[in-house]
Amino acid sequence: MGNFSDDMLNLDTLRKILVREEDTIIFSLIERAKYPINSPLYDKRPGLSGSLFEFFVKESEAVQAKAGRYSSAEENAFFPDNLPPPLLPLRDNEQVLHPRGASININEQISNMYHKQLLPLITSNGDDRNYAITAGRDLDCLQALSRRIHLGKFVAEIKFRESPENYTRAIRAQDKDALMKLLTFTSVEEMIKNRVEKKAMVFGQEVDLKENDNVGKYKVNPSVVSRLYGEWVIPLTKFVEVEYLLCRLD
Amino acid sequence: MGNFSDDMLNLDTLRKILVREEDTIIFSLIERAKYPINSPLYDKRPGLSGSLFEFFVKESEAVQAKAGRYSSAEENAFFPDNLPPPLLPLRDNEQVLHPRGASININEQISNMYHKQLLPLITSNGDDRNYAITAGRDLDCLQALSRRIHLGKFVAEIKFRESPENYTRAIRAQDKDALMKLLTFTSVEEMIKNRVEKKAMVFGQEVDLKENDNVGKYKVNPSVVSRLYGEWVIPLTKFVEVEYLLCRLD
Repeated sequence: MGNFSDDMLNLDTLRKILVREEDTIIFSLIERAKYPINSPLYDKRPGLSGSLFEFFVKESEAVQAKAGRYSSAEENAFFPDNLPPPLLPLRDNEQVLHPRGASININEQISNMYHKQLLPLITSNGDDRNYAITAGRDLDCLQALSRRIHLGKFVAEIKFRESPENYTRAIRAQDKDALMKLLTFTSVEEMIKNRVEKKAMVFGQEVDLKENDNVGKYKVNPSVVSRLYGEWVIPLTKFVEVEYLLCRLD
Repeated sequence: MGNFSDDMLNLDTLRKILVREEDTIIFSLIERAKYPINSPLYDKRPGLSGSLFEFFVKESEAVQAKAGRYSSAEENAFFPDNLPPPLLPLRDNEQVLHPRGASININEQISNMYHKQLLPLITSNGDDRNYAITAGRDLDCLQALSRRIHLGKFVAEIKFRESPENYTRAIRAQDKDALMKLLTFTSVEEMIKNRVEKKAMVFGQEVDLKENDNVGKYKVNPSVVSRLYGEWVIPLTKFVEVEYLLCRLD
């Protein structure tokens, strides 16, 4: 994925990025599923302000901020307050997003969904005490999901620019339902759900040189990946799109 | 991968771990190949003691050390000096490795191989300035390769325990060639190279619901993955095994 610029701001490029992002999300889920749930990682710790996981994410985001991660409009931090500045000069990105919409950040919702709903569906019970690696794998999943969902801002911006007249009335009326309707294409959503299920089958299979006993066994249940998209990723992306459009004329 | 203990110290369990590690290595290469080479990431920076990449790895390893990563005998840091202690009590792992062999760390060689040989083979030219994400993907590759290669210590320990008489004479004579010969099974190595090539084809393909134009196009060249194993991963693992055995009787 390159830097977004006005040149890249077209639906065809963005669609390719979103499709490629599916692979990243599925790889990260498979890698997280390698470890059991490891729940002590998420318990509040007396010596820390929260859990070991929260500590890990805050510190990792600080390192990544210094390396310039959050200078990119595609990236949103989970703990965006008090991030250190980048060590190198900021990229002079063209600001392609509307400034108010650019600051939308629903990572708290994404994080809740991930921990409460998704994680128990993809991990086994147990505790192997590999907390540092597990936390890294969690952060990979969260960042991939967050990037995918917040790319909704770009989807919304492109769609608005392509036909402002379609959206303006609903935006002026602050009519969320009308906007949601304009952004919903059920057949496309079904296709995405089927595609990610197929990807989970391909990427999560046991590959061996000869036939093996593991045909039909997957590292992450493909129907969970389909459900992840149907129940959470697609609705949250559309939520971002609607929120973005609501302030597009401010 | 759980914690190693004497129970787990058998070749069958370890073989499964090494096979699963192949998937992790290939996923990480595919994810790195998503970005161009981004060479300014690796240039020396006046304000820093080295490159932005070195800075990123040192700081990331410090965070991971606090989360306990290097309390595990399977993990070796790229900048092992002055790592902070873990925040939580150390895992009381049984020490299954011989203490001198346990400290073997060839990450400098792995890092050289990765940057000078492998990276140019899997990335396109160009600079998209996504340095923070690129650095994270590099570190994932390096850590996966390092874990795989240093698991050679466990392979060597198991093989030694299974038949100490086979190894003792060569160890006492400090005969590296004889040890290398005892540890080399050409047909197994060929099988591994073929399997990782097949995995790269499966995991690196373009998956779509209908037939697409990308059949035979892979995100990472499968023959590069086979070469990675044949020229670097397998020889470096055996190098670790030999080094481990050389001090096994100390």
